[in-house]
Amino acid sequence: MLKNALYAQSGGVTAVINAQACGVIETALQHPQQIGKIFAGYNGIIGVLREELIDLSQETKETISGLKYTPAGAFGSCRYKLKDAQTQPAEYQRLLSVFKAHNIGYFFYNGGGDSQDTANKIAQYSQASGFPITCIGIPKTIDNDLPFTDTCPGFGSVAKYVAVSILEAGLDVASMAASSTKVFIMEVMGRHAGWIAAAGGLAASSPDQAPHIILFPEVPFSAETFCARVKQCVTKYGYCAIVASEGVRDDNGVFLAASETKDAFGHTQLGGVAPKLASIIQQQLGYKYHWAVCDYLQRAARHLASQTDLDQAYATGKAAVEFALAGKNAVMPIIVRESSTPYKWSIDAVELSKVANVEKKMPTEYISADGFSITPVCREYLLPLIAGEAYPRYHNGLPNYIRPKNQLVTKTLPEIDFKL
Amino acid sequence: MLKNALYAQSGGVTAVINAQACGVIETALQHPQQIGKIFAGYNGIIGVLREELIDLSQETKETISGLKYTPAGAFGSCRYKLKDAQTQPAEYQRLLSVFKAHNIGYFFYNGGGDSQDTANKIAQYSQASGFPITCIGIPKTIDNDLPFTDTCPGFGSVAKYVAVSILEAGLDVASMAASSTKVFIMEVMGRHAGWIAAAGGLAASSPDQAPHIILFPEVPFSAETFCARVKQCVTKYGYCAIVASEGVRDDNGVFLAASETKDAFGHTQLGGVAPKLASIIQQQLGYKYHWAVCDYLQRAARHLASQTDLDQAYATGKAAVEFALAGKNAVMPIIVRESSTPYKWSIDAVELSKVANVEKKMPTEYISADGFSITPVCREYLLPLIAGEAYPRYHNGLPNYIRPKNQLVTKTLPEIDFKL
Repeated sequence: MLKNALYAQSGGVTAVINAQACGVIETALQHPQQIGKIFAGYNGIIGVLREELIDLSQETKETISGLKYTPAGAFGSCRYKLKDAQTQPAEYQRLLSVFKAHNIGYFFYNGGGDSQDTANKIAQYSQASGFPITCIGIPKTIDNDLPFTDTCPGFGSVAKYVAVSILEAGLDVASMAASSTKVFIMEVMGRHAGWIAAAGGLAASSPDQAPHIILFPEVPFSAETFCARVKQCVTKYGYCAIVASEGVRDDNGVFLAASETKDAFGHTQLGGVAPKLASIIQQQLGYKYHWAVCDYLQRAARHLASQTDLDQAYATGKAAVEFALAGKNAVMPIIVRESSTPYKWSIDAVELSKVANVEKKMPTEYISADGFSITPVCREYLLPLIAGEAYPRYHNGLPNYIRPKNQLVTKTLPEIDFKL
Repeated sequence: MLKNALYAQSGGVTAVINAQACGVIETALQHPQQIGKIFAGYNGIIGVLREELIDLSQETKETISGLKYTPAGAFGSCRYKLKDAQTQPAEYQRLLSVFKAHNIGYFFYNGGGDSQDTANKIAQYSQASGFPITCIGIPKTIDNDLPFTDTCPGFGSVAKYVAVSILEAGLDVASMAASSTKVFIMEVMGRHAGWIAAAGGLAASSPDQAPHIILFPEVPFSAETFCARVKQCVTKYGYCAIVASEGVRDDNGVFLAASETKDAFGHTQLGGVAPKLASIIQQQLGYKYHWAVCDYLQRAARHLASQTDLDQAYATGKAAVEFALAGKNAVMPIIVRESSTPYKWSIDAVELSKVANVEKKMPTEYISADGFSITPVCREYLLPLIAGEAYPRYHNGLPNYIRPKNQLVTKTLPEIDFKL
């Protein structure tokens, strides 16, 4: 009897994670001699634990193909880390029961570092339990922090969004600065690494252009140095546009955004980095300012996805299935950069055991000596990742994003007492 | 001797104000028998007062045509309201001196309500002074609050940005809500009217879709009613996506964002509405939340401009010149809606004296009875305004926005002591 395949999304979603799903599903459908049914975990691994499996055969061909053009997690994702397989194997036992009950032979887990670790552990556990599952990890994270792969699907589109947004807002501030706002701060994601903030730097083709300042988590924040630079920019260029990572920290490693703020009622106010920086500028320099916080808009912005990112997203999904069918197990497809100009890339595989829990940091040589901008080598790395515009289809002025039926298969196992 | 034309941008910029400039300049260039040179005020009316006039004949045809695809104010805009013409005529006298010195016969002023008032006063003053200038106002404001015109160029593109952004972020939250963020708040512009917030409502084609709640400046904010609705949405749909106008006010008309917040050092913190609402939700309901503040990103987002908005922007610029050449004076081109489905519009003219200082409010029947969403009639009004995608050209993954040389003509008048 043919083995079925199960796909699950994990962690924060991206503009192209559904394109990865599309690559998996469309490729699996092309191999009916080797793969039976295709399921998706409803809300990721939580759905697998709860035996909530989406029957993808209920979705139309148009819906499956529309995944390529739809942001966020169409089957639901989750933030849930499995407990330790050695000391608390109950969850792994449950997963295996679900896999057995639905004759799963292939498990595709689409997520970041933690998920790659989980996929690896499931591969090991299922092997040891005599019901071996082929487990393939599919790299996904806007944080761009997975090792071995040239980039992580999801990052290129955020990078494009951030670069385009600061380019546009920079032009806005420039045109108003003579009589109005002189400082603009745009807060972007990236709690532990400055990859996303760095992408903002692509908008500036010369030092007079926005962004004039990038604040990286890698560079300890000094209000004094920062204010001096802001003042310098306003004096020289008439205005100052800033891209700030949410992960900006002081000398002691304390997040700038975490410093306590109370409202009029004495309630603690969880602020962002942008309003905090605005407050510092107001206190120290008195300039009129504006600030924006991109938050989810940046990682959901399918309307501005990078064609490179989309192509790589689909290719990693496709490769995951092809690797599985070629007999590979406990691996993750990676993107290999063959050249930067012109950008050429191919897909290879790396063992999950090597990927798990290794974080790719931004190289020191990607940040300028003064800590406020990116270097030419960083630009060379980033530029191809934002190339091309992969526009979605529109209907009545809005992107025509698909909404799958997400019909669950009939449960066959006893319910478990599973709480988040 | 042929009279020259002067164009100036005023107030907050938009994604398509340069397209209006393009309409003015390209149309003026088509009438070399009637219009001599074409100038632009550098930083708007401030540049006119300072005799800082941009010589547009120094720009290439490609730059002029590229204005159509470039957001913000390419010649600089400003926030500056002329003093009263009756009691403090010095500024009007100065403007007239500059007009005389550069043989200006046509003045095109591209801005909101205040600017239409100014254009009207210049028309009157110049007439009374024996050096009559043909003054045409060109409507522009993302606030959509000018009377007579069906909509204001600039608004449709912000509306599209806001609708697309909450659609995308809504999908993001929906896919994560089972185990993570349950409430998402997106703050948009519109201090006095809810037009922009209302546009977010276009993203929801049914009540289960984002946004579930819209907060309008027109509806007094009650934390109790708001929290009850948030809880209801989270219970019913699993999550709650909110579009909040920056102009949300309480029963007493006090801006929610203005309520005082102090940071750890006792400094006053100027927060936005979004973090304030997040704080209320955290206190009252304890849900995990995220928030975004669009700020300038929304009005600079030329990458997502509405084709309707772009067409109307260009058409109003073109009509302004045609009206002037047809002998009209002290008028503003307006957009007339002939039908909603299909959307048909034409251009007409209205006297500036009727426009000046009249604010178009959002009709009461555009807001639902519970105050949290838009009505079908509002949707019918808004939908055509976001129709069509007017993408800019891209180069190396980024929009290929033009940057004019902005070369100033030689000054012929004595400097004035003009300070902002």
